[in-house]
Amino acid sequence: MEENGEAMKMASPSSSLSPPEISMELHEVNRSRIVQSLQQHLTDSSRPLQGFVFLQGGEEQNRYCTDHIELFRQESYFAYLFGVREPGFYGAIDIATGKSILFAPRLPADYAVWLGEIKQLSYFKERYMVSMVCHTDEIVEVLHTQYGGLGKPLLFFLHGLNTDSSKFSKPAELKEMEKFDIDLKTLHPILTECRTVKSDLELSLIQYANDVSSEAHVEVMRNTKVGMKEYQLESMFLHHIYMYGGCRHCSYTCICATGDNSSVLHYGHAAAPNDRVLKYGDMALLDMGAEYHFYGSDITCSFPVNGKFTSDQHIIYNAVLEAHDLVISRMKPGVCWVDMHKLAEKVILESLKTKGVLIGDVDEMMAERLGAIFMPHGLGHFLGIDTHDPGGYTKGMERPNEPGLKALRTIRELQDGMVITVEPGCYFIDALLVPAMKCSNKSKFFSQEDISRFKSFGGVRIESDVHVTSSGAHNLTNCPRETWEIEAVMAGAPWPPKNTGE
Amino acid sequence: MEENGEAMKMASPSSSLSPPEISMELHEVNRSRIVQSLQQHLTDSSRPLQGFVFLQGGEEQNRYCTDHIELFRQESYFAYLFGVREPGFYGAIDIATGKSILFAPRLPADYAVWLGEIKQLSYFKERYMVSMVCHTDEIVEVLHTQYGGLGKPLLFFLHGLNTDSSKFSKPAELKEMEKFDIDLKTLHPILTECRTVKSDLELSLIQYANDVSSEAHVEVMRNTKVGMKEYQLESMFLHHIYMYGGCRHCSYTCICATGDNSSVLHYGHAAAPNDRVLKYGDMALLDMGAEYHFYGSDITCSFPVNGKFTSDQHIIYNAVLEAHDLVISRMKPGVCWVDMHKLAEKVILESLKTKGVLIGDVDEMMAERLGAIFMPHGLGHFLGIDTHDPGGYTKGMERPNEPGLKALRTIRELQDGMVITVEPGCYFIDALLVPAMKCSNKSKFFSQEDISRFKSFGGVRIESDVHVTSSGAHNLTNCPRETWEIEAVMAGAPWPPKNTGE
Repeated sequence: MEENGEAMKMASPSSSLSPPEISMELHEVNRSRIVQSLQQHLTDSSRPLQGFVFLQGGEEQNRYCTDHIELFRQESYFAYLFGVREPGFYGAIDIATGKSILFAPRLPADYAVWLGEIKQLSYFKERYMVSMVCHTDEIVEVLHTQYGGLGKPLLFFLHGLNTDSSKFSKPAELKEMEKFDIDLKTLHPILTECRTVKSDLELSLIQYANDVSSEAHVEVMRNTKVGMKEYQLESMFLHHIYMYGGCRHCSYTCICATGDNSSVLHYGHAAAPNDRVLKYGDMALLDMGAEYHFYGSDITCSFPVNGKFTSDQHIIYNAVLEAHDLVISRMKPGVCWVDMHKLAEKVILESLKTKGVLIGDVDEMMAERLGAIFMPHGLGHFLGIDTHDPGGYTKGMERPNEPGLKALRTIRELQDGMVITVEPGCYFIDALLVPAMKCSNKSKFFSQEDISRFKSFGGVRIESDVHVTSSGAHNLTNCPRETWEIEAVMAGAPWPPKNTGE
Repeated sequence: MEENGEAMKMASPSSSLSPPEISMELHEVNRSRIVQSLQQHLTDSSRPLQGFVFLQGGEEQNRYCTDHIELFRQESYFAYLFGVREPGFYGAIDIATGKSILFAPRLPADYAVWLGEIKQLSYFKERYMVSMVCHTDEIVEVLHTQYGGLGKPLLFFLHGLNTDSSKFSKPAELKEMEKFDIDLKTLHPILTECRTVKSDLELSLIQYANDVSSEAHVEVMRNTKVGMKEYQLESMFLHHIYMYGGCRHCSYTCICATGDNSSVLHYGHAAAPNDRVLKYGDMALLDMGAEYHFYGSDITCSFPVNGKFTSDQHIIYNAVLEAHDLVISRMKPGVCWVDMHKLAEKVILESLKTKGVLIGDVDEMMAERLGAIFMPHGLGHFLGIDTHDPGGYTKGMERPNEPGLKALRTIRELQDGMVITVEPGCYFIDALLVPAMKCSNKSKFFSQEDISRFKSFGGVRIESDVHVTSSGAHNLTNCPRETWEIEAVMAGAPWPPKNTGE
């Protein structure tokens, strides 16, 4: 298996990356977690310890009616439990024994001509470290044979709400469903909860994705020039993570926003496709993250495209950086994420007040939710196999109603082992500022003159991926953050500072 | 509009590319073609000249149940007629008057915060050069008002078979369908036929996509080194087309096959992800093409990864090149594509015979369909907004049954204005060779010894995009093709030869 072969050092003057071997033990650990959690749950509910976790993997998708096949990326829950990169699989885990079974599609003979060698089942057994591999047309027979309980085999299907998309996961589709008992309710919350706390093996992949992305961000920063198009920054990032980091996928579409565009939170999509020309004096806001073996990163750097912060850029950037740093220093198990969000808001509002951009009492501003004018998004979200990893709201938790807070993707208390982004921002968004400045309760806080100075400023976001540890928090991201660090790196100084990287 | 702004020269030591302005007149011309063709058809069938061509554009897709949004790419028929890059649109063309109407989605207010400025309808009217732009919730009203005929407005929906995917295009979905008369049969074959003959404006985009991809192929060839991973070649290609060519999309997933893998026709997908290490003595087969404003390219280069052809590599490569060149020299309107396919097969078989790899009479080999063992795919396919552009089989045309020929994506006669790939190949595929060498009718043609020499050779494909002109054919692709040209370019010689490109 090439992918798992000897880790290679990709020679490059600008990279110290070396794509690590992928250990499928990671998914074995994930499987043992779900078995343990489900066993606990069944015991607590006085239910028998029997049945199979049963998931359907993703399928390749055609583009509309054509035979253009989109590059396949495995469904995330399936990836979590099995790590399978091929489409068309099913997977089962026996809750009683922990035995894992993969079901591979039976490929037509001409697959060998068009798409490659038809692998033996033993190949998949070895590669994915499962107990058994059969074909998908043997599911009914195998599960009946393997089932240790009485009556029809019980299958735990995955069915539940993704609280970011408001979509429901699609339970497995199976012929002869009547030959099984199906439980649609139990699995989803428990499996989702398993995903919120990362194992060491998961963490090491998220760390690697961060290493790749941090280095690529620095590479982009160094090569950014006035006159380029935004998409050229995207291209440099994508090239660096793939060429040197072995990352074929990004965690999400790159946001390469400059000037005014940096106040558009999710810029970069097809209708706003990173196509502006960089101008002297612009801020750039680059939100880009690599994915490695399903595990992702999500990093934002903000910097002046010409390499020198103006005094206004200093003000806004440092307000955000202070929030970023203070939040990370306060993070530890038991801390409520809503409090961290409010802390970030408050730090930013205080800075804006100190610098004369806002006027009045910061507590009053907080009561008026003024922070949400400048930071309408949540402070951060879980990160893992999905960029917005699930589990932000557990059963019964209600999304807040207040501006800003309602955009939070989680309101939970932090726990040891969670990985969460810390991404405060400060943006000058006409669609929010104009109404706020006309609002009787809010207008008094604004210095019209100072605000108008920032009309085309855009915005600043600083985003790191942070691992919550037993005693605090560890920042997985390693990008230049202080303004002088950024200016030095853009002028050619090495990064990280103590290692020239050459 | 940045995208349509002044064409920029992207300074680069290795690129002479300059992303051209995009003229929406192209889509105006496309619309006038469908109006003309439909009018002709209706006149011929003694039907009234009334009704609307009515298409639904593509929608953004979530990845499974998550809020991960795949980068949107417009549906191809909609792109052909309207050139719209944004999701969620509908479009109508009045057959009687030629008037074109776009329907834009009404975006929620917070779109401005998250995704960017909510554009005025006048913006779309100007950008896309249509007669009128309304919102999608006004479709019923607007079409009723605009309709010049009697009774319910007649809508021509797009519904028909894609002969490459065997899937049907999805007709528009519309509320209050009962307020219209719907014709599901007429539009698809006529619109598909329009797409088979390219206008000058379409051709210039396909030429540009070819220029970008040709240059990127040369860049990759020059930088290929033993010890690299296949995906690094992919990364270099993607970077070149985006950084210098402004091409965010590829026409298809890059095939970067080396060694044995080069006999896997559609290598590079998720289950065979370009992850082999390049070894001295390998052939590389790189099938990669850029897309620019929907129009694509599809180019394959084959070369030895260490820059020097061995004598066996010479034999196979030149057999394929001879077929490639001879086919292009014979192409002109009226020529049947099946004959071209057979011509390519014959040239390759003759070369293999001359070099002692095969034994016996070439006509007998042809009768035994031996060519399909070495080239199991079709000689080429239409190219345009889709890589496999539709229209390869018109109504009543039957797909051949014979090996090789049954893989042809078209069996039509060439016409002035068609763009078609010419991509002969010669592969040593165990799954085909082993049975053939045991087959009583075929085994006599093989020199066991010589064939076994090629066991791990892989394969060679040479693919160019060719425009059929009134008098012959014009090759849009410009890559080094002769073995000495490839060796020179890989050793650092400029390409194209007479222009140093620096």
